[in-house]
Order: sequence, then C-alpha cells, then structure tokens
Amino acid sequence: MAQTWGNFLFSLLDYKTEKFVIAKNKKVGVLFRLFQLGVIGYLIGWVFLWKKGYQETEEVIQSSVITKLKGVDFTNSSQSGLQLWGAEDYVIPPQGDRVFFIVTNYVVTPNQKLGYCPEVRDRLLFYFVILKTNYTGRCINDTGTCEIHAWCPVEHGQTPSEPMLAKAENFTIYVKNFIKFPKFAFSKLNVLPTINSTYLKMCRYDKDHHPYCPIFLVGDVINWTGYSFQDLATKGGSIGFGIEWNCDLDKDESQCNPEYSFTRLDSAKNSQNSAISGYNFRFARYYNDAAGQTYRNLFKVYGIHFDILVNGKAGRFSIIPTVISIGSGLALMGAGVFVCDMILLYMMSKSSFYRETKFEFPCWAVILDPNPALP
Amino acid sequence: MAQTWGNFLFSLLDYKTEKFVIAKNKKVGVLFRLFQLGVIGYLIGWVFLWKKGYQETEEVIQSSVITKLKGVDFTNSSQSGLQLWGAEDYVIPPQGDRVFFIVTNYVVTPNQKLGYCPEVRDRLLFYFVILKTNYTGRCINDTGTCEIHAWCPVEHGQTPSEPMLAKAENFTIYVKNFIKFPKFAFSKLNVLPTINSTYLKMCRYDKDHHPYCPIFLVGDVINWTGYSFQDLATKGGSIGFGIEWNCDLDKDESQCNPEYSFTRLDSAKNSQNSAISGYNFRFARYYNDAAGQTYRNLFKVYGIHFDILVNGKAGRFSIIPTVISIGSGLALMGAGVFVCDMILLYMMSKSSFYRETKFEFPCWAVILDPNPALP
Amino acid sequence: MAQTWGNFLFSLLDYKTEKFVIAKNKKVGVLFRLFQLGVIGYLIGWVFLWKKGYQETEEVIQSSVITKLKGVDFTNSSQSGLQLWGAEDYVIPPQGDRVFFIVTNYVVTPNQKLGYCPEVRDRLLFYFVILKTNYTGRCINDTGTCEIHAWCPVEHGQTPSEPMLAKAENFTIYVKNFIKFPKFAFSKLNVLPTINSTYLKMCRYDKDHHPYCPIFLVGDVINWTGYSFQDLATKGGSIGFGIEWNCDLDKDESQCNPEYSFTRLDSAKNSQNSAISGYNFRFARYYNDAAGQTYRNLFKVYGIHFDILVNGKAGRFSIIPTVISIGSGLALMGAGVFVCDMILLYMMSKSSFYRETKFEFPCWAVILDPNPALP
Repeated sequence: MAQTWGNFLFSLLDYKTEKFVIAKNKKVGVLFRLFQLGVIGYLIGWVFLWKKGYQETEEVIQSSVITKLKGVDFTNSSQSGLQLWGAEDYVIPPQGDRVFFIVTNYVVTPNQKLGYCPEVRDRLLFYFVILKTNYTGRCINDTGTCEIHAWCPVEHGQTPSEPMLAKAENFTIYVKNFIKFPKFAFSKLNVLPTINSTYLKMCRYDKDHHPYCPIFLVGDVINWTGYSFQDLATKGGSIGFGIEWNCDLDKDESQCNPEYSFTRLDSAKNSQNSAISGYNFRFARYYNDAAGQTYRNLFKVYGIHFDILVNGKAGRFSIIPTVISIGSGLALMGAGVFVCDMILLYMMSKSSFYRETKFEFPCWAVILDPNPALP
Repeated sequence: MAQTWGNFLFSLLDYKTEKFVIAKNKKVGVLFRLFQLGVIGYLIGWVFLWKKGYQETEEVIQSSVITKLKGVDFTNSSQSGLQLWGAEDYVIPPQGDRVFFIVTNYVVTPNQKLGYCPEVRDRLLFYFVILKTNYTGRCINDTGTCEIHAWCPVEHGQTPSEPMLAKAENFTIYVKNFIKFPKFAFSKLNVLPTINSTYLKMCRYDKDHHPYCPIFLVGDVINWTGYSFQDLATKGGSIGFGIEWNCDLDKDESQCNPEYSFTRLDSAKNSQNSAISGYNFRFARYYNDAAGQTYRNLFKVYGIHFDILVNGKAGRFSIIPTVISIGSGLALMGAGVFVCDMILLYMMSKSSFYRETKFEFPCWAVILDPNPALP
Repeated sequence: MAQTWGNFLFSLLDYKTEKFVIAKNKKVGVLFRLFQLGVIGYLIGWVFLWKKGYQETEEVIQSSVITKLKGVDFTNSSQSGLQLWGAEDYVIPPQGDRVFFIVTNYVVTPNQKLGYCPEVRDRLLFYFVILKTNYTGRCINDTGTCEIHAWCPVEHGQTPSEPMLAKAENFTIYVKNFIKFPKFAFSKLNVLPTINSTYLKMCRYDKDHHPYCPIFLVGDVINWTGYSFQDLATKGGSIGFGIEWNCDLDKDESQCNPEYSFTRLDSAKNSQNSAISGYNFRFARYYNDAAGQTYRNLFKVYGIHFDILVNGKAGRFSIIPTVISIGSGLALMGAGVFVCDMILLYMMSKSSFYRETKFEFPCWAVILDPNPALP
C-alpha cells in the first residue's frame, strides 16, 4: 500500500502534456494566430503601455488647502463715502479656506434700525416681502405702498452696473495644497521643493511659462474660464479651481506635479436658466449707538466664489493587478481556441474528418477486459 | 537552414487542436454542462446585466455646493426685546457653504464687560469654571459663590425650552450642486436644464412629486430624517443632507440625476449617549461705548447644522473590465474541467479505464530509434 | 433529421476530456509542480489572506465632522490691556467645522481710522505698500517716509516672539466624526457606543491608553507631529488631523474603529522654503463712535490651523472579485503550461521525441476516403 502511494506521488512529478492534433488548415491557423496577436497586442499595447494595467491605483486623495489673498482697492459711493478694502474685508471668510469668496460689488444699507417703514415697490422685492409675512397691515396712501416691520430703511434693490472693486482683477491668490495618497503613504505640496522664496514672491501662474507657480491673478483665472472679469464681477459667479495630481509612483517623485484648471460652475451651457448664475449674499455688521440703541449696516455683496477642487490618481506596480490583467488576457485566448475549434469542426468542408481525429472514441471492448494491455 | 526556418514558420500557421477522449459518462457530462451553464449564467446575469461588469467605474466625484436660505422670523425675549432674524443673521456662515448652520434657539447675554463677578452656581458651569482657572480667590459669603475674572455678567445656563425661531421650519434652502466625474470628463448641475425660473421660484422638493426641485423646506427635511422639528430646534442637531449621483454614462445624460436623502447625524441608534446629540456654539459681537470701553453681546446659539454630503458613481463601457470579467469567468470554467476530470478519473467505477484512455504512455521503444516512423 | 438533432444534443452530454501524453521527464514535472504551488501559494497567501482579494472594497468615505473646543486664556498687552479669550474668540470660525483655526498669537492695531499717514519703514511692508499703490505722493521729510491713504495708524510689523495665548496648549478639542460607506450602507460614529458620558467628560486621547477617546489636548496633538507647541504657536502652522477607518465588514461592527494620526502640513521636509511655513491672517472688527465715524480694530492673528482629514476603506465578501482573483490565478497556470511545454518540446535532449508524441499527424490517406473506418 505504502508503495502504491509512493508510486502515485512519484507519478505526480511526471509532466503531463496535452496531446494535440495538427490540422493542416491554414485558414483556421492564420485566424488563430491573428487572434493571438490581437490578444498580445491588446495586453502589451493597451493594458500595459497605455492603461498601466500592472499598477495598483489609488483614486482617493487626501487634500488640505490653504489660501491667502493680497491686494487692496478703494471704493467711493455716495452712501458710504470713500472705503478701503483689504484682504481682511473682501475675503469671506478671512481665514484662508479651500472655499472662499471675493467681494467685487456690493450694496450697503447703512444705519438700519428695527422699526416700521414702507416697503419698496419692486417686483422681486414684493415676492421677498410676501415670504417675510411681516406686514403691519397699515398702508400709506400717498406712496401706494404698505408698511412692514423690518430693519429700516429697507434695502433698495439696485446693484451697481459696474463692479465697485474694479481692481479685484489684480488681486493675487496664493494657494498651498498639501496632498496625500494614503494607500502609498505618499505626500506632496504644490509649492514644489524647487521653488525658492524669491521666485515665490515675484511669479504669477501661467500654463506655459510658470506652470508650477502657486500664485494666481484673479483676472487671469477668470479669463481662463472663458468669461470676462466684468461679467462675473458685477453679478457674481462661482469658479471651480481644479488641481489635478496624476502621479506614476514608479517614476521619480519629481514627476508628480499639480495641473491647474479653471471652470465657471454657475453657468451650465445647456441651461437657459438665469436663476443658477450669479453669486451674492447678505451680511450685517451690528453696533450700538451712545443711547444703547442697536443699529446695523447691511451689506449685500456680489463677488466671485472660488471652490478649490483637488482630485488625483496615483499608481504603483503591484503583483495582483498584473496577474489579473495577464490572466484575463490569457483566459480570453481560450475563448479564441473555442471559436477556432468550432470553425474547424463544424464549418469546414473537411469538418467531419477533423472531428474524427480530434475526438477519440475509446475501444469499448476494453471495458469488458478489466486489465487491458497497453496498445 | 533557411528552408528549415521557413518550414518552421510555415508550420506555425498549422492549427493545432487539442485531442479529446469522449468519455460516455452522462453523470460527469451533465455535471460539466450544469457547471458551464452556471458560469455563463453568472457572467451574463450577474456580472453583465446586474453589476455592469463591462463598465469602467469612477467612484470619486468632484463636487461644489452653494446654498442659499430664505425666510424671516421674529423673536421676542425679555432680555433683548423684539428681534428680526433674516438669513444674514440666522445662517452661519452667511456665504452659502456646503456646511451651514441655522439658528433656531439662543441665549443672549448682552452688554458683557471684562471684570470680576460671582460665578453662577451650576454643576455644569462649575466644571467649566474649573477649566477656566481664572479664580480670583475671593469668595463672597452672602451668595456662597466665589469671584471669577470674566466677562460679566456671566452667562446663565438656561436654554429656552421652546425654539425661539419657531418659523425656521418654513425657511427654504436652495441647493446648487455642481458635480464632475474627472475620469469621464462628465459634469452636471442638480438644477437640471429642464427646470425653468418660474418652476424654480415656486417648487418645493418632494420625493414623489418634485424629485428634482432643488428647493427644500427646513421642516420637511427634518421630518424626513424621522425626527420632529421641535426635537432638533430646541437643543440643536446635525443633519446629513445626502445627494447621490448614480450615472450610467452609456445611457443618455438626462438619465443621470441626483437623489436626495436625509439622516440625523448626531444620534447613533445604538448609543445611549446624550453627549453626542445636540448642536450649539457661542459667538460674540464686540462694540465700544462712547468712553471707548469694550463691551460684547455673547450669543449661545442652538440650531440645525446641515452637512451636504455628495457621493456618486459613474460607469461607462470599457474594454479592460469587459475582458477581465469574461476572462476570469472562462478561467473558472477551467476549474470545472479540473473537478470533472478528478471525478471521472478517480471516483467512478470505470475510473481506471478512463485513466488509461486519457493518459497516453508513449511507446518507449521509439526513444531508441532516433528516427521513428509515424505509426 | 429530428433523430440527428436528438443524437447531437444527447452527445453534448458526453463528457469530453483532454488526452494527455505522459512525459516521464522529472525536471519539467518538478518545475511545473513548483509553478503550480507558487500560483496556489500566491492565491491563498497573498491574494486571499493578506490582500483580502475575495472582498469588494469601497475607498470612498462619506464623512461629516463637528468640533468643539474648550478652554480659556488671558492675554495682557500694553496696547489692548487685559483680555480674556474664550472659545468664541480664539476659534475661527466659531461654529465647529472640520477645518478650524485656533488663535495663539496676535498683533492688534486698535482704533484705526481711514486717513493719511506715513508708511512704516520696513522692507516687507515696502513691498506690501507697492502692491497697494495708494500713495498720495506727498513725502514727509523729517521721517523720510511717504504718506499713504490707509487705515491709520498702520499696522507695525512686529509679531510677539512668544505666543500670547500660552495656555492654548491646554485647550481641548472634541471631535465628532460620522462616517458612511455608501456602497455597503454602513455608518458609524467615532464616539463609540461603548463610551459613556462620564468617560467622555474626563478622558484625553492617548494612542496607548485611550485610543478611542474623542477628546484631544492641543499640546499633545502638536507634540505628536514632532514639533513643539512653542514653534507652531508663535508664527502659526497647519496640522493635518487624520482619522482613518479600515473596516472589514465581514467581521463584527465593533472591529471597525477610527485610528488617529497627526502631521504638520506646512513644513515639507525636502523644502528649505520658509514661505510655506507659518499661518496667519487678518480680520477687522468695525465700530462707529458717537459721532458716527467708522473705526476698526485690526487683528493679525497667528495660530494653528487644523484640517481634519478623514479617509477609509471598507471591504466585504463579494462573488465578482473572488471569481476574478481565482480566475486570473488559474489562467496564469495556463501560462505555466505553455512555458513547461516549450521547455519540454524544444529545450530537452529528447525534445523531438516529445514533439512527435504530443502532436498527432492524422493519417492523410483518410481524407481520400470519405468514410474512414476507425483505426
């Protein structure tokens, strides 16, 4: 018994190779070789060279963005007089987030006080007032309007037709973007190690000449979206500021660099809907006068909303995707064998001959003989 | 030699087909056919029809969200009198971010001034004061409390038991969500191109009747989480406002639409932990009086924190996943062949016969004859 | 005809098994068995046990973060006197976002008024003033400086060399993180269900002793990044506060827990660039005096910017990745067969013999005979 097992195990080390029948059929032969070449070409050309199928990829990117704006502008209006706007005023919120807003136009309603005043006659405002439902019910005949309980005087609804902060075009945005691909424990800053402080002070991003300068001119960014500063600055708008990291970690780290792109987000080309474009909001600054009475200055600000959208992909050689890519390609070759066999066995003039040589009918007589002699 | 190579290359074009032995064993035959049907069914039904295994998928979505709230409410308290709350007041921050907070309840401590005052006797505040470690050491006997250096008077710790801004339920949230699948260069807005301005002004989101209206009533959103406005508004709470984009880019673009869902985030069902529910924070408004002395109004605000969470997935036909899906299925068929062979060769009554016909022992005599004649 | 079809269908149920030739070549046999063992080892060990190749994975995590800070500090400066800083003052923005900033140092320029004043002589400020381009052109000879139109007096450029809020080290950060893996409809809070209110009040996060306590000491967090509080607090800095969720959903839910990590983001090790480190910004508080004149207090704040970066991965058994993993491994075994065959047929001393037994040349005479007798 032990010897039988030994023989069996020993026979496992015999190499068993499939027996093939050579069908001297050049048509099917050429077809099969073409199919093999196709699969090999697909594997090498498309999967490996073009799509880097030998790489494990990470499409989730961890990203932290810090922004800092520079530049000042003066505005001069009849209501609020001469005003100086620094980054502390026009950037909302001021702390340098990934998403920020630059004031480019505004309507200020100064010294509002809670009380009763006539509503403004304006179609849009009418809708707004309905919503408020704070009518007193008293109507003032000589103006034809009704009284509301509100912060008085109420905001007039007229937006300046020109951006008040015309110099906003020249403000600069300094973007610091730290990224990490957790799967590969790879991290990098968009302020590349090759950039020194002097360059950082003077450079302005430009796709062709300064592709890695992290300082952007507001006017340039808007122009690159295909819109004009004038368009966006008057009624406001939203800009997607894309940073893309495509990193092949099989190459040197210095090859993994950010690419910037700029899109206007609040203007769908297919949509004729004016309600989705523009960007504005209101905020109020409260103060008390000497008598302790609360007043406020209401600002309706229009401007450019920047949303810095970071995305990326990293790839590095890994055995599993390589095996999957090669294995599935080889398995597909098996499908080719099946197709060629079908053609050979059923669609050729000599098919019946091929069938007879391919398929061996064992001699059934031997079944009767429990210990058949080898042929 | 050249001719030998020529012959060799020419013989490459001969089609070689595997030789099969037909085992007239219906049991194994049926088993193998069932296995083949299983694999084909799995490939077609599960992989292709159900899971769309022929598609390359992108699960990383780039998203930009802008929100705008509308509605007003009045509050009337003994401390601060009649107050009007507009979006500029109750939305924090006011600029329309993806994450925002609506004030629904508050405690105001007006006219605080830096100085010395007795602490409030309250268990929670006691802990808070310990943390502060700004005791003066002086204790006032008649009240039994000790003096602290703080903004005086200190905040009393009582939250109104009813939400002060009861009308917050009727505020509306307008959500603009721009998404992009970078791999497919596909982008879309949740304000669909079919929506016009009139509809946008009057519609309210409703799963059944207005599934694509981007305007949401605060009260509805809270109800859809399974909680009541009263619950959340008094002590505050956090709501996850999900937007899901499941896009089959092999179909028309108009089939790729947002789906909204709403969850309360600060209330784990399994947890009996009150410390995780509720949402409040403090902020202060500073002002100087005529004498230049700094005062502040301290607001402790309770309210609803909305976090708009966008996720999505896009798929489009691609050759690589198709090959991988088909190839791995076919390769699995090879495993079926192996299993059926094992059964046939070792577990049947006629196994020894099958083994003898399947495995051919070449006639070793021919090794001695260097040029054996074909049989 | 019907009978022919019946026979054909019936013959489909015959099991056809490949005919093998046993090559008694132990070298190739051992090579092939080793290759088979390698593939099986790779599949079981690497793909299944180590990489969990039988799981469908989700790398996109939906996350909502709420933070709350506690602690107070006093500052005492010649300019602004004694000041008390509570969370409502030093946390910017105050509402408890994922990204927040803690003031640790500041320069205040109180009571600024719009007007004309001499610029400050400072190299950096000079550059800043050039940018502003709000020169009046008038130069004051006795100081050697020129007049600018600005908020006066202008900010002097000196940052305190010690953090003003030295106690910021002891502030605590309470982090609530709700996560969801949309593909698996799995959600969890970092405040685990096992944590009760008492523990939550007293615990401080510590990798070894309290790995799931969601309350972090600012000083600890900074130390864990490898920097000192003193370093960051004076000039400011940015900290990435990582929360990682690695969840094997085939195991119990209680095994899916957060892991915290801390990195300084504004200091690339490879970069000698001082311009990327530090964190500060300016904000202003406006007020009107009794005469209605607008004044402002300008704050330049330095501090620690926290960016809570949540990432994660979940996996659960799924049939498709299992089939792909196994199938591609099996298909690779086919590649082993090809290699071993090549060695056997072309690189052995007895190769020509193996070729002759492996490839069967059908007897071409039979082609002439349309109904050949079985051999």
